[in-house]
Amino acid sequence: MPKESPEIFLSGIKLSRKSSEPLYAQLYAQLREMIIHGRLRAGDRLPAGRTLAEELGISRVIVSQTYEQLTIEGYLIGKTGSGTFVADTLPDHLLHAGKLKVVSPKPKKEPVVNINESTVRLPASSTENEIVPFHLGVPSLDSFPFKIWHQIGNKVLKDLKKQNLGYNNTLGYWPLRKAIASYLRLSRAVQCEAEQVIIVTGAQQGMNLVAQCLLKRGDKVCIEDPGYFGAASAFANAGVEMCPVPVREDGFDVDYAQATYKNIKLAYVTPSHQFPLGYTLSQEKRKQLLAWAEANDTWILEDDYDSEYRYEGRPLPSLQGLDTCGRVIYCGTFSKVLFPALRLGYLVLPSAEMVQGFKKIKQIIDTQPPLMEQLILCSFMEEGYFLRHIRKMRLLYAERLNTLLTLVKDQLSEFLTPNTSQSGMHLLCWLSDDIDAAKLKAEVRKEKVFVSFPSEYTIQHHMPPSITLGFPAFTKYRLKLGVEKLKVCMERARK
Amino acid sequence: MPKESPEIFLSGIKLSRKSSEPLYAQLYAQLREMIIHGRLRAGDRLPAGRTLAEELGISRVIVSQTYEQLTIEGYLIGKTGSGTFVADTLPDHLLHAGKLKVVSPKPKKEPVVNINESTVRLPASSTENEIVPFHLGVPSLDSFPFKIWHQIGNKVLKDLKKQNLGYNNTLGYWPLRKAIASYLRLSRAVQCEAEQVIIVTGAQQGMNLVAQCLLKRGDKVCIEDPGYFGAASAFANAGVEMCPVPVREDGFDVDYAQATYKNIKLAYVTPSHQFPLGYTLSQEKRKQLLAWAEANDTWILEDDYDSEYRYEGRPLPSLQGLDTCGRVIYCGTFSKVLFPALRLGYLVLPSAEMVQGFKKIKQIIDTQPPLMEQLILCSFMEEGYFLRHIRKMRLLYAERLNTLLTLVKDQLSEFLTPNTSQSGMHLLCWLSDDIDAAKLKAEVRKEKVFVSFPSEYTIQHHMPPSITLGFPAFTKYRLKLGVEKLKVCMERARK
Repeated sequence: MPKESPEIFLSGIKLSRKSSEPLYAQLYAQLREMIIHGRLRAGDRLPAGRTLAEELGISRVIVSQTYEQLTIEGYLIGKTGSGTFVADTLPDHLLHAGKLKVVSPKPKKEPVVNINESTVRLPASSTENEIVPFHLGVPSLDSFPFKIWHQIGNKVLKDLKKQNLGYNNTLGYWPLRKAIASYLRLSRAVQCEAEQVIIVTGAQQGMNLVAQCLLKRGDKVCIEDPGYFGAASAFANAGVEMCPVPVREDGFDVDYAQATYKNIKLAYVTPSHQFPLGYTLSQEKRKQLLAWAEANDTWILEDDYDSEYRYEGRPLPSLQGLDTCGRVIYCGTFSKVLFPALRLGYLVLPSAEMVQGFKKIKQIIDTQPPLMEQLILCSFMEEGYFLRHIRKMRLLYAERLNTLLTLVKDQLSEFLTPNTSQSGMHLLCWLSDDIDAAKLKAEVRKEKVFVSFPSEYTIQHHMPPSITLGFPAFTKYRLKLGVEKLKVCMERARK
Repeated sequence: MPKESPEIFLSGIKLSRKSSEPLYAQLYAQLREMIIHGRLRAGDRLPAGRTLAEELGISRVIVSQTYEQLTIEGYLIGKTGSGTFVADTLPDHLLHAGKLKVVSPKPKKEPVVNINESTVRLPASSTENEIVPFHLGVPSLDSFPFKIWHQIGNKVLKDLKKQNLGYNNTLGYWPLRKAIASYLRLSRAVQCEAEQVIIVTGAQQGMNLVAQCLLKRGDKVCIEDPGYFGAASAFANAGVEMCPVPVREDGFDVDYAQATYKNIKLAYVTPSHQFPLGYTLSQEKRKQLLAWAEANDTWILEDDYDSEYRYEGRPLPSLQGLDTCGRVIYCGTFSKVLFPALRLGYLVLPSAEMVQGFKKIKQIIDTQPPLMEQLILCSFMEEGYFLRHIRKMRLLYAERLNTLLTLVKDQLSEFLTPNTSQSGMHLLCWLSDDIDAAKLKAEVRKEKVFVSFPSEYTIQHHMPPSITLGFPAFTKYRLKLGVEKLKVCMERARK
């Protein structure tokens, strides 16, 4: 592949014919300085003599003299046929010079950025890079149909020129919005037309968009406690007042919310598979929640992040599907079904009119979602691969969950009691009384076992000590190793 | 390609053995209703009898009876070998039923979304779909190296499984951050290490991120008047007080800003090629601006949106390159050099420490940029295609600008006087006194000539009537047609 130098781009160089210094000396000094100060780096290619001479409007002789001089001094090396480069090893005395130092700002009064610590408590998984057991929220990447994705992507790239590559609809690629709507209607019983769908670059952008569009500073927002901090952070960032609501075996405690708070502007819930506890919001509670929302003009933000994965019986229909008064905003992501680095998700708003309102704010936050990803995903869905993949993963994850449950039963039963609810992408286990949670935290960190502690997601409603284990991304073998490591940690964490 | 039905997904169906209705009748009624109310649409494939029977825990006979009945009544059609589908034409009496109606919310007190009209004045180009002369800000898409992009993309997709497809660094793909830093150091004289670079999904997200991180409600922000509303919208959305500053032949009027405003938190400038007037900030003004920023702890947001395109002499170094006190935040995009639908851009902050602060807020706004785009762009840059493309486009656009200038001179000289500054992606022309700007606006809209009026980008500093014409995306032929249409509009728009 051709390596090209930044020929016309040496915008730093300024030569003056008025100066007492000869042009040659000026050019020499400036190039040398660029090398010493690191604007030109080891291995960087210099412009061809002719090009630089043209750019600077000087004779080629001057340029070649300068290059020669710098080569003799060891700053440059000429490679026959391929050009002139900055030397890999500079003369010793230069090593003390160091590279260009950037003066960092010394904010005198205020902090550099508007950080309110409550806005930055994101789950570790969003910053971790290596995926190890029992990492949360990561699908089985090794089972992803890369071949098919590649085939479709190849076709998309081949036909790219036929697409509108200019500025596009901020709400997303229309055929993809249609595909998502039809998927949600059938699989999640969401009441949904394509006009209600907004494509976002992941659930996080979706939740932030909801916060930006619907919440004003000082508004009251109910969140599940314990709950997902990604959502809470988006609300906190909008300057709202956080109203924590405890989570029971049958989900978000509507009675508590009703009795404790007034004028709630929005309530954030994960009805299919509460994060992190894994409980499901009961049918009765769903009706109660919707009635409460209608009576108080409260928006419900339903985060259906891993609802595709239900291993007993059929998938539960969404809360949005029961909504008769347009109070529910439905949020979903492809990170849990395909892969997180794809960065596509969706919001479903109660009406197309409301979408037009959101559109105006969305354009300010992020012009439009990336086209290539949308085109690939759209074909992947239209051609039926998406549903097939979900179906395969449901079977695979059910199997992996059972593997994990057996391993826990066989090796960790004295330390852990798994929660009965069996759905989603992580398993909640209660810690036995003789385990010191703090010690355990330190041990798993030391052993590099990724275990998450729901207590870290609590705000004020304390709960018996527990841990959550993600399983979809791990083979039987890796789960086994993970459990063995975890067992060691448990033994060390005894009170 | 296999079409797959949402088999396991008919989560809407609920059968009760307790009901007096036989299972067959319940299933019939519910499927029929799904078809009438549009949850099942013409052409949707129904689950295979066996699958549905398993899902519902009933005998296959019941399912096939139901399908048969619905087929006889014209709701379904069986295609031998390929399955059972919802009929394309439903029995007449159904057409009155209509599809599932979604109740749209009736917000009683407040507007549905937080819209402040000043936050939504975005340039038309960000919503227009078809690209016609003289559309602003769109590069020459027909000259994009699609073959090479396809080759690289194909390789990226082929090796995708080797990448970390989980949750990743919110600041962007590290090798791409390095490639961008080295490009900016050499081509734009930006003082920049990879650690200072944040990859964003376009300049708009970058500017919104700056607003979210650095601006508090009530802060004062200087913007160019006339100026780019995409930036102004992001600031307005953060609740700041807008302080318009007029633009002179040598750019942003620092004296005016200094004399008129106190305690400015941030100033937004487009020094290389002012939007929309096309002026360049003089060297003297640059130094004055930086001194003012240092003295008042003012942040400078430098939007270098189309600086790659300078047709006379060498590219101007960036303002950031002259900054010695870390007050300049540099913002750029790939939309103007590659294509807008790519959605990648960058911020360069004064220090790596500051980047860590931004990171916390960025995670809340949008987890991370999409990986595939970043991988493709990274190879495209590393392999030298990027610089080569910019260089080609510089020559092409210079040619197209000259074509446009000649056409304007030959055919529109009685109506238009082109601005002398020759850089960037659009040409500013002053309107002659006998043209009624309002009439012209109506005419060009009617004729579908995309002409933009700088006066639409003004806040309080009025200026002689002018228009801007984008040219990079258009061949000589299309420019010619555009100018002819424009001439017709001009003649009709005479006072």
